[in-house]
Amino acid sequence: MTAYSDLSTHFGRASALGNAVGILQWDSDVMMPKGAAGTRAESMALLRVMHHGMITDARIGDWLADADADHDLGPWERANLREIRRLWTVETALPSDLVEASSKAISACEMKWRQARAEADFAGLLPYLAEVLSIQREIGAAKGERLGLSAYDALLNDYEPGGRSAKIDLLFDDLADFLPGFTHEVLAVQGKRPQVADPQGPFAIEKQRALGLRMMAALGYDFERGRLDVSTHPFCGGADNDVRITTRYDEGDFAKALMGVLHETGHALYEQGRPQGFLNQPVGTARGMSLHESQSLLVEMQACRSQEFIAFAAPLMRETFGGSGPAWETDALWRRYTRVEPGFIRVDADEVTYPAHVILRYRLEKALIADAMPLSELPAAWNAGMKDLLGVTVPDDKLGCLQDVHWPSGGWGYFPTYTLGAMTAAQIFEAACTAAPDILPAIGRGDFSGLLSWLRSNIHSQGSLLETDDLLTQATGRPLDAGAFKAHLRKRYGGEG
Amino acid sequence: MTAYSDLSTHFGRASALGNAVGILQWDSDVMMPKGAAGTRAESMALLRVMHHGMITDARIGDWLADADADHDLGPWERANLREIRRLWTVETALPSDLVEASSKAISACEMKWRQARAEADFAGLLPYLAEVLSIQREIGAAKGERLGLSAYDALLNDYEPGGRSAKIDLLFDDLADFLPGFTHEVLAVQGKRPQVADPQGPFAIEKQRALGLRMMAALGYDFERGRLDVSTHPFCGGADNDVRITTRYDEGDFAKALMGVLHETGHALYEQGRPQGFLNQPVGTARGMSLHESQSLLVEMQACRSQEFIAFAAPLMRETFGGSGPAWETDALWRRYTRVEPGFIRVDADEVTYPAHVILRYRLEKALIADAMPLSELPAAWNAGMKDLLGVTVPDDKLGCLQDVHWPSGGWGYFPTYTLGAMTAAQIFEAACTAAPDILPAIGRGDFSGLLSWLRSNIHSQGSLLETDDLLTQATGRPLDAGAFKAHLRKRYGGEG
Repeated sequence: MTAYSDLSTHFGRASALGNAVGILQWDSDVMMPKGAAGTRAESMALLRVMHHGMITDARIGDWLADADADHDLGPWERANLREIRRLWTVETALPSDLVEASSKAISACEMKWRQARAEADFAGLLPYLAEVLSIQREIGAAKGERLGLSAYDALLNDYEPGGRSAKIDLLFDDLADFLPGFTHEVLAVQGKRPQVADPQGPFAIEKQRALGLRMMAALGYDFERGRLDVSTHPFCGGADNDVRITTRYDEGDFAKALMGVLHETGHALYEQGRPQGFLNQPVGTARGMSLHESQSLLVEMQACRSQEFIAFAAPLMRETFGGSGPAWETDALWRRYTRVEPGFIRVDADEVTYPAHVILRYRLEKALIADAMPLSELPAAWNAGMKDLLGVTVPDDKLGCLQDVHWPSGGWGYFPTYTLGAMTAAQIFEAACTAAPDILPAIGRGDFSGLLSWLRSNIHSQGSLLETDDLLTQATGRPLDAGAFKAHLRKRYGGEG
Repeated sequence: MTAYSDLSTHFGRASALGNAVGILQWDSDVMMPKGAAGTRAESMALLRVMHHGMITDARIGDWLADADADHDLGPWERANLREIRRLWTVETALPSDLVEASSKAISACEMKWRQARAEADFAGLLPYLAEVLSIQREIGAAKGERLGLSAYDALLNDYEPGGRSAKIDLLFDDLADFLPGFTHEVLAVQGKRPQVADPQGPFAIEKQRALGLRMMAALGYDFERGRLDVSTHPFCGGADNDVRITTRYDEGDFAKALMGVLHETGHALYEQGRPQGFLNQPVGTARGMSLHESQSLLVEMQACRSQEFIAFAAPLMRETFGGSGPAWETDALWRRYTRVEPGFIRVDADEVTYPAHVILRYRLEKALIADAMPLSELPAAWNAGMKDLLGVTVPDDKLGCLQDVHWPSGGWGYFPTYTLGAMTAAQIFEAACTAAPDILPAIGRGDFSGLLSWLRSNIHSQGSLLETDDLLTQATGRPLDAGAFKAHLRKRYGGEG
């Protein structure tokens, strides 16, 4: 055996273990009876410890050194070594007592957060969140020391390999300059239009599910390697060759479940399109969270809130639910799915105001990790930011800084990937439609094959062969900038929309 | 840490891994899209190898020796050591190349069997089955040498710890003497009765499911620690505190799904009633397959084909399906669920003729493992046995010796537990009804609490504290004999039935 094949076998086993965890996590969220929570937590903790043990195996360093000297390796194998080294470097950076302390602090904080959010009680959460933050700083420092990065960039790197806050600052500052004024403009345009009523339910869940399945099939989702189910929060999960998505149904509004399905289908198409020959290797995984989010938003926002898509989907919606009248007109439905309205809650935000929610969180978490702001000042800073970026006055912390689970659950450095994903989606979709001009007209006929084929070749099948910037440059001609996203928003929502 | 607590921690971890495998197996049978089969097989093989590694860990021998000398242990801890030693002794008896050879031979044989059964082609299966048999003999010999048992008893021991063929011979010979004549008698009695038509479908699956759930609830199944789903073959599986059952629905006959639910609920009540304090330890597991099957048959056959149960269930059946007329009369339904009819297929057999199917398989597999009969003579021996025990002439091997997956899949030594379970069920139910005479009348009112309470105290909560004979003696006053089972059959099916 060569050192490379030792590594490949070893990481294939780690992947088999990761796949088991993926299915168990899916089951926890979708199927598990609640009395099994404790038993399940023990199984998953054990498998995660075993997985961590595998990717920090003492032999990996030697294997990597030997494999680096192997001149018979092709570009995929070389890239696989790079990704293995990346994983191993980060995973071996943390002392195990820090991992354990983090896990305990997160469990306690998440539990407290559920209560604190319900009671809008930031003061109650503060000591728990301070503990999580303090440990996140330590984790960032430990990883950063190994990687030569600041603590925040080291945390960001876990979600967005190669991502740097200096670059995100530029991109987000650009957007933050643009968005408040643009949002005013959009609201003015929309305000002048006649109001249209929403379609009235109830919309039977079975019919909503049938519509979702039909859209998934149209998009090219492979049902032999996945499923659609229900969970409290929609997600895409599962395992290699078993890419499962979920949605949730509201009998009063079928758009929620449908848009959830479209979004998660975008994630799933990426997962289903990863390179089969390297599916169980680090180089075969998705390139990072920004790219992943770009694929969901490309489907949900770029493709499926277009006038073309609604022209295709509106008759199916009318047929599915027996809808008729002004609210069911194609144009009315399109206006509904592109309605802009500043609000307090990130997950309910539209495409135009969403980035403001993210930019605020990004700036705050960066300051908190750098210890440039006391955690006790978070609510005041949050509310000032919301006023500044969105023009809204947050009434309490439940609708403010307590709304998201990310910080209590240790997901520091994750938030920026949402908006990087939105910008990436716009840039990729623009490139795809330029390269294959029939993509949008075909979507109007319910034919997504041109889009999927372009994405398969240029994004999905590339796995982690290239770094993010290089992949985006190869696919779109340049690294990420805000241009395509701003142009998209202007076109869809500006005066001419 | 004492040696006992080391062992307890270690086997708790093995249990957490086993629970993960249990959920993944459930998912494979109930949820998994077919394109994931290869990926899943890799994950499960890895986890099983890890599990095997844990229960054959080199430290266990020393821990056991030290723990044996620990005088502070109570009876449950002592019994736990006995069960740990039992597991460890058996699992360390096999060289790993034999485990691997067995796994490969079984995979090949199972695949061939699906085709051979469809084509009634025993000759085609013969070389594959011969390989499995030969390896089973080796496994039996290796385990037998360690345990001081014959090869067959060593195989049996995996399913029925402490079980011995010398004892089974006596029990089964007793039944084999009784059953052919008794079956004739039953057929004569039933033949004199007027024929009653079966309820006519279609029976909507949703209604069948609702009826099943209602019965599970009545029986005392805990839905916070389990689920009801659909699979090709009904089973009870899952994990500790997560005991999931399945059934399958036939729109033309609601009894199939219902009886499947009742049977699997019996298994599930046992699993849900195991001792919480030792749930993740060997001593907390079910006592063996005969006891397990006794719990399913006690519910399905003893309790739920009684006239009392049908008196309770018949109105619910009529209400659920809107049934009326002669086929839906309580007495007609009872006669239908206790109809006796000799046939070729074990899984379709009634309570009276089922043991003949098992006794035949038991005698044949014992002879084959002992090399007392050439495998090529299996079809002829099978058909002769069916003629002798059941009076039927097998038309081909599809309806004969190719019908069951057990032998191709390496399950040699399993078959006798079905009929041991039926006999055990009769003996336990008799003891329960003697101790608590209201059990059957209460079932007639849909109240199973008396039965469940007795089973919880006397069987379920005992886990593997005692050996099978001792548990049965404690619960019923004597080790297993055929008396209660024969008395039950005479009472339900004999002239006075």
